[in-house]
Amino acid sequence: MNRKFVSRRRFLQSAGVAAVAVPTSVKGYTAAEMSAFGPDRVTALDISTDVMEQNISKWELDTPALCVDLDALEANLAKLQLTATRNGIASRPHAKTHKTPAIARMQLDSGSVGICTAKVSEAIAMYEHGIDRILMTTVNATPYKITRAMNLRKWCPEFIQATDTPGNARDLSEAAQAAGLVADVVIDIDSGGHRTGITPGQPALALAQLIDQLPGLQLRGMLCYDGGSQHVQGFETRRTRTLERCAPATETYDLMQQSGLSTEIFSGGGTGTYNIDHETRGLTDIQVGSYVFMDAQYLAIGGATDAEVYSDFETSLTILTTVLNAQYEGLVTTDAGAKACTINQPWPIVKGETGMTYRSGSDEFGTLRYDDPSRTYRLGDKLEVIVSHCDPVVNLYDQMYAIRNDRVEAVWKIAARGMSA
Amino acid sequence: MNRKFVSRRRFLQSAGVAAVAVPTSVKGYTAAEMSAFGPDRVTALDISTDVMEQNISKWELDTPALCVDLDALEANLAKLQLTATRNGIASRPHAKTHKTPAIARMQLDSGSVGICTAKVSEAIAMYEHGIDRILMTTVNATPYKITRAMNLRKWCPEFIQATDTPGNARDLSEAAQAAGLVADVVIDIDSGGHRTGITPGQPALALAQLIDQLPGLQLRGMLCYDGGSQHVQGFETRRTRTLERCAPATETYDLMQQSGLSTEIFSGGGTGTYNIDHETRGLTDIQVGSYVFMDAQYLAIGGATDAEVYSDFETSLTILTTVLNAQYEGLVTTDAGAKACTINQPWPIVKGETGMTYRSGSDEFGTLRYDDPSRTYRLGDKLEVIVSHCDPVVNLYDQMYAIRNDRVEAVWKIAARGMSA
Repeated sequence: MNRKFVSRRRFLQSAGVAAVAVPTSVKGYTAAEMSAFGPDRVTALDISTDVMEQNISKWELDTPALCVDLDALEANLAKLQLTATRNGIASRPHAKTHKTPAIARMQLDSGSVGICTAKVSEAIAMYEHGIDRILMTTVNATPYKITRAMNLRKWCPEFIQATDTPGNARDLSEAAQAAGLVADVVIDIDSGGHRTGITPGQPALALAQLIDQLPGLQLRGMLCYDGGSQHVQGFETRRTRTLERCAPATETYDLMQQSGLSTEIFSGGGTGTYNIDHETRGLTDIQVGSYVFMDAQYLAIGGATDAEVYSDFETSLTILTTVLNAQYEGLVTTDAGAKACTINQPWPIVKGETGMTYRSGSDEFGTLRYDDPSRTYRLGDKLEVIVSHCDPVVNLYDQMYAIRNDRVEAVWKIAARGMSA
Repeated sequence: MNRKFVSRRRFLQSAGVAAVAVPTSVKGYTAAEMSAFGPDRVTALDISTDVMEQNISKWELDTPALCVDLDALEANLAKLQLTATRNGIASRPHAKTHKTPAIARMQLDSGSVGICTAKVSEAIAMYEHGIDRILMTTVNATPYKITRAMNLRKWCPEFIQATDTPGNARDLSEAAQAAGLVADVVIDIDSGGHRTGITPGQPALALAQLIDQLPGLQLRGMLCYDGGSQHVQGFETRRTRTLERCAPATETYDLMQQSGLSTEIFSGGGTGTYNIDHETRGLTDIQVGSYVFMDAQYLAIGGATDAEVYSDFETSLTILTTVLNAQYEGLVTTDAGAKACTINQPWPIVKGETGMTYRSGSDEFGTLRYDDPSRTYRLGDKLEVIVSHCDPVVNLYDQMYAIRNDRVEAVWKIAARGMSA
């Protein structure tokens, strides 16, 4: 039995998840039927009485269905906020993970200073659903995207944009002046992956100085997202690596301070380093995303207290799926394949069961293979899997069911689904 | 230089694709702006005059944008239909690939006897957009899904359902009687992968006999989809394999005929075997899907006339993307990552260029690395990539731009996007 398998089983057992008795007379509410109860909830408390009266079990949902367990979600929000406060930093969670205004609202209500978005269309979707403290972490590279960002800024005074080249900063300055406003800007600093951001040190300082001088712009500080460290296995290895990779950003922070430039914001970090990032001197807030849901990828990286399983946060996000074929020995076919689960690995994990492996490599169908299974399934049975990688999985669904004690408490619109532009 | 690289370059050169000069003063119409011109076109001819008057270049679209080239799409439809007719079989294309009623309509108009869908929600979405000859290739495994299928059947007399167990056949019979109708049914036969379908031979025959006797059901024949052979590399290997795997289905076909059961429909095959499937005796129609678009995965399998590249159909489906970062040596970052391209491999191929490789492994960003590049890119430049695997890529987008000579001719709603239930 390999190490990963032991880890998973240990995690599932330690989480105290029991095999669930699914009601035999299940209904099967479709996405359209459920969304009619309230497709666009902004808070978890804003619950349609229709849903409450109907008291719908999650097992009565048509599948595939994306579910978030509210107790686990709320525990994750509280744990993150407690840790950040204890470490003297703020949180500015990344909405690219959930794309769901209702969750962004819960994050702000639990103490986050704002949210991040990856794309301007995502920012607009969030703003249109009542979220008004937004840091867009990606540069807008074309004139029309800059115009959209400035339009958003007109309505949303707490919208902050990132830039990483002098030319782009000048474009932002011109667009802000044309729009008759002063736009808040942070510089994006490369953490070494050369994916986005400007080189730390003198290039970053020169850019900050330029922004400070350009009309129509107000420099608010910097961001440095170290994406390359988030999934490094083993807490100490991860800690050493991210602190090394963020050190040049701190040096830039010092240069900016010495030059009298604003360092009010120094945003960075993520779910894999949330309890390390405060050691990066100057850092003001962590851009955590996946902590709300967790997934098979993050479970595998190990934590400070548990070297095998990253159990700092609870796995709140699951997919309900139905068995479509159970007539062959040793396996069953389900209705949740790549179009419902993505093909990210580690593969989805069957919740509450052991001795079976799930694969979603086929577009339409999942395959569940039995090894030494804790139970077996018949045609029409439902089961629940922990998702492989939460961000792209959420991006497949138009709505998410907010579940408490296996009951549907709200139906949340994933308002920024597909907003990659 | 490895074989795959040579193949790709040779394909792109042989296809005569030149590097495109992108207009410098591009606009950037968003998805919302474009959908306002006509979000729900049913045929390619039903074009908003607004769009025509504006004469929008595809390079003026905000990105990421999913585009289908109409000349290539139409050529693929014609080639498929010509080949099928020449081989004495019909086509019943699978709409799981495109999820787009406008394309289903073009398929029916070009001579297909109907379309297939993978899920009942997909079938309903197609019917709601005017498509009324539908074979659903997957069993409905729960009472409420069966009810939905029977409701669809009430409205859509040419809706045909698949079943693969006696118990499910009895459920269909009861539901059809409760709905006061006679439902058309085919039996799904396993091609050896044990994913869906019943075992060929006596089990399949017994199921067909049961259906023939059950009230409320009318047996129309059988289907046997050999998904496992579609991407087998090399034409002859693929041919041998699929004919072997489909032989038991033909034996079942014989048994059914000898028993006086209907074999009016014997549906199977796919894009990888479209010019082989007629050799499976009894087969009436091919469930081709990807042939409308093609993708990097199908290019790699090789064809009857070209062992290296499967060039039987044209690559019509592309994603437009914009460069977000070009300040580092040897690579650029784009705005089309996993959420716009999936992480299927082979990775997307930059259209019309050589000496560079694209990767969409990161959720938000694509990475284009230069090897011996035919050109380089600056911040804000746009480029076009051939998709990795068309089905799950289409499932990420709400609309598709129908392009002719680089101009937007229509905006098509991907009405069954996300319909995995």
